[in-house]
Amino acid sequence: MDKTTGSNSTTTDAAFSPIEWRDGGLYLLDQTLLPAEETWIHCSTPEIVADAIRRLAVRGAPAIGVSAAYGLVVGLQSVKRDEDLDRRFREVYDLLMGTRPTAVNLRWALDLGKELFEANRSRGAKATREVLLEWAKGVHSDDIESCRQIGAHSVALFQEGDRVLTHCNAGALATGGYGTAVGVITSGFDHGKVAKVWVDETRPLLQGARLTAWELGRLGIPYQVITDSSAGALMSRGMVDRIVVGSDRIAANGDVANKIGTYTVAVLAARHNIPFYVAAPLSTIDPHTATGDAIPIEERDPTEVTRIAGVELSPNSGMAHNIAFDVTPNELVAAIITEVGVLRAPYVESIREALAQAG
Amino acid sequence: MDKTTGSNSTTTDAAFSPIEWRDGGLYLLDQTLLPAEETWIHCSTPEIVADAIRRLAVRGAPAIGVSAAYGLVVGLQSVKRDEDLDRRFREVYDLLMGTRPTAVNLRWALDLGKELFEANRSRGAKATREVLLEWAKGVHSDDIESCRQIGAHSVALFQEGDRVLTHCNAGALATGGYGTAVGVITSGFDHGKVAKVWVDETRPLLQGARLTAWELGRLGIPYQVITDSSAGALMSRGMVDRIVVGSDRIAANGDVANKIGTYTVAVLAARHNIPFYVAAPLSTIDPHTATGDAIPIEERDPTEVTRIAGVELSPNSGMAHNIAFDVTPNELVAAIITEVGVLRAPYVESIREALAQAG
Repeated sequence: MDKTTGSNSTTTDAAFSPIEWRDGGLYLLDQTLLPAEETWIHCSTPEIVADAIRRLAVRGAPAIGVSAAYGLVVGLQSVKRDEDLDRRFREVYDLLMGTRPTAVNLRWALDLGKELFEANRSRGAKATREVLLEWAKGVHSDDIESCRQIGAHSVALFQEGDRVLTHCNAGALATGGYGTAVGVITSGFDHGKVAKVWVDETRPLLQGARLTAWELGRLGIPYQVITDSSAGALMSRGMVDRIVVGSDRIAANGDVANKIGTYTVAVLAARHNIPFYVAAPLSTIDPHTATGDAIPIEERDPTEVTRIAGVELSPNSGMAHNIAFDVTPNELVAAIITEVGVLRAPYVESIREALAQAG
Repeated sequence: MDKTTGSNSTTTDAAFSPIEWRDGGLYLLDQTLLPAEETWIHCSTPEIVADAIRRLAVRGAPAIGVSAAYGLVVGLQSVKRDEDLDRRFREVYDLLMGTRPTAVNLRWALDLGKELFEANRSRGAKATREVLLEWAKGVHSDDIESCRQIGAHSVALFQEGDRVLTHCNAGALATGGYGTAVGVITSGFDHGKVAKVWVDETRPLLQGARLTAWELGRLGIPYQVITDSSAGALMSRGMVDRIVVGSDRIAANGDVANKIGTYTVAVLAARHNIPFYVAAPLSTIDPHTATGDAIPIEERDPTEVTRIAGVELSPNSGMAHNIAFDVTPNELVAAIITEVGVLRAPYVESIREALAQAG
């Protein structure tokens, strides 16, 4: 497939999901090996699911939520006696909840699963497991549908010929399928508006260079990868028309936590009067977190920065500081694109209304 | 050496230079191999010097200038007959001038060498070569002395406990020795002011993670490496007090070309009211370039972005865009620290006066 050109025909790859439930089990595409290898992990225990989330084999807030929902089901598969059901559910819930702190979709999915568990556990292990599996499949398909709706709502924000910059990967790989930011780009491309994508490589783990580039290539959408620190130079030369990113958690006031570097892109966008959009399902909005200051920010192993492709590139690997996310204040966000529509400032009101509307 | 702690005693490594003239020949430390290997290149022909400059074995505007000065001498070493002198000088001058477009110190050194050549060529090959060698050694030692003066002038700008962020490498490795931005940091550390350095890794070629980290470790100055896109998050958390960078070319109005990503740091600094300083010798100021728009910006091989440590990390290496420098407009620059003092806005006047003062 030629990655530099693409027609405006509808992209063909839309059914792709990095998460599959098949043959009675959960399979996750190991994103740490992309683009070199496409290897699926058979998650036969919740420990395997938790490990996949922790080491970013599955990543992206919506995809983490969907994986955690299925992970609850996987955890209950080993329960033979109904009297073990409660203890086991708590174990699995705690295991999965402890994997990563920032993405709120994790807690969102686990708490929905817990409610459902409590409403059904009296029916015994087998029946409860079946109910949870149907629910998890619903979380998965709802997430894909939300992404498609986000894409549909975004079209009016774009103009023909737009060159769009994105940071990290908020594509099919980061969701149940289709993607949030990449879904918006796909929709804009299918409508003849998005002409080109600038892909921030997204250090340290290169989700842009590895994953977004891989997805855009499959979709036939023209792109070029850039170092994260090139974004400012491109904006100052008038080469970027719009920016769209995903999110790991949105506070009640519209402050946005996302992959480290997102804040920098937003500050540059403000200086150059370029619209900065956030694409996210309502499950990423956390009404219990008032502002971005209250969002827990994960710090990860310094060697993620100093060791690339297994090679130690800095003289002392302990000497790196590796914060995985940053917070973009609401005043830098031109719009939050959700499955129920495009939210605008003041976000306290527009977010409250959107959540109320969704019930 | 413990890289995380350091006393306030004068750093011991100050005599280090990446450029050496010994045993009648030029030796350059191959910076592409640092920090894993310390290998010196014996530059027995000007083609080897040019190749070292092109592939960044020697880099940093002042170090390129010094290397080019010695490179003229190396080029004349093969001249056996006086009647070949003129043709050979032109060849070598053109070869070296064509290596890299952005750093003005290259042209500055070559044009000074050309003037000297023209004033002396009538004395024959041997005498001219000797005059040029003495001159090149002077360019080298003057550059080190300029760096020390830059360091001395900068002390008053710093306060005790300062956490300083720098981008790329403007250290001993980038100069004749001592460094511009790292010289300022060293001087501030020796005066008990600089407490810690945040080192932007500086993608794509990681001059921060590889070279600045290596230098600060040798100097015993506490540092941590960060991804370039972490700088904004650190500033928003109040963890950065001052920024100092080097430059490849400063226009007559104070616009500053430097390693890609510098502009982004300057924009973030402005948002957070953090002083953004540029440290550079007067040889980096180009009075013939009116503004930053006129500075030629080098574009380099896309595989510098997509291939790290020899491993292809993105699905299509042709799909990267690799601009090596950006321009920071003068309004974002709090001060330009030179060997004749600290220049402030309006830079058109302060730069004109500084150049006049230096003669």
